Amino acid sequence: MYFDPEKENARLREVQASSEDVFDGVVLHVKRDMVTLPNGAEAVREVIRHIGAVCVIPVLDNGDVIMERQFRYPLDRVILEIPAGKLDAANEDRLSAIRRELREETGYTADSWQEIGPFHPAPAYSDEYITMYLARGLHRGAQDLDEDEFLDVYTVPLKDLVQDVMDGKISDAKTQVCVLKAARILGI
Amino acid sequence: MYFDPEKENARLREVQASSEDVFDGVVLHVKRDMVTLPNGAEAVREVIRHIGAVCVIPVLDNGDVIMERQFRYPLDRVILEIPAGKLDAANEDRLSAIRRELREETGYTADSWQEIGPFHPAPAYSDEYITMYLARGLHRGAQDLDEDEFLDVYTVPLKDLVQDVMDGKISDAKTQVCVLKAARILGI
Repeated sequence: MYFDPEKENARLREVQASSEDVFDGVVLHVKRDMVTLPNGAEAVREVIRHIGAVCVIPVLDNGDVIMERQFRYPLDRVILEIPAGKLDAANEDRLSAIRRELREETGYTADSWQEIGPFHPAPAYSDEYITMYLARGLHRGAQDLDEDEFLDVYTVPLKDLVQDVMDGKISDAKTQVCVLKAARILGI
Repeated sequence: MYFDPEKENARLREVQASSEDVFDGVVLHVKRDMVTLPNGAEAVREVIRHIGAVCVIPVLDNGDVIMERQFRYPLDRVILEIPAGKLDAANEDRLSAIRRELREETGYTADSWQEIGPFHPAPAYSDEYITMYLARGLHRGAQDLDEDEFLDVYTVPLKDLVQDVMDGKISDAKTQVCVLKAARILGI
């Protein structure tokens, strides 16, 4: 290993001095904490506390991927993403959660689920933790969207998605990682 | 193309009905907006407004990558990441910003800068937009950290980082994307 985690953690650690809830929303819980830095100085840390999430790259037997296009309000546009969703509860089983999200959003179920790694989207200011999956052995069923959920479902060849990621045409972080990971796993 | 962006945007768009500032911090600016959904219903959107950021995967002539380990308070631990930083101003030139961040955090300057794509870490609730770069032709100089900035700098072979990403040992989103993109670009 190229570092000693224990020593490094001890030397670089920031210690909480105080914590204040500044926004308690439906999805976002924002805290404003004071921390003591390794040199003894104090600093502010603004932190999003997030319940956690899951995502999946579902690859059909012919190499097509089941993708979604969804309006993302913060960006004010529709973007292309793999299926994903928040946990219903912090202690929800993550595999159950992603099976549910895939079925509800796309109608598909899968025989084979492979966990392909952890994902911290924004570790500087959010504790959101996403578990990524690769699903194969897919079976088509009926979509079951929430009443207030609107999205379009597509199938796109994985090799085209890899090219789109490399060309900078897909900006969503989890989608980029899962496309490139799946391509390596499947030898594409 | 596998969709018609204009038609899809029109059909899936959410329209702002109202907007409220709920937290105006140093790094995070949080808004709580009401939107009108495509079916006419109203919904809440909690949104982080972020100034924007840049990151770089700096690859030495021998194939080693310049990496950082930094304490991330939201995760309460040190994690491995590529060099990155926020813009100083929303209109700051992104290439200038990443040149500055690389030099200050690691001491390195680079002859060759290649933009390797856009990155939205969390499009469901944040407008943060990161531009990713690959830097080569690196020259070592002196680190110039901010007074309250603490991090360790390493060099790690790119092929080892690819293996770590595939093994789920690197969780940082931008680092996973840049490692896998650089590996494809450099044929590793």
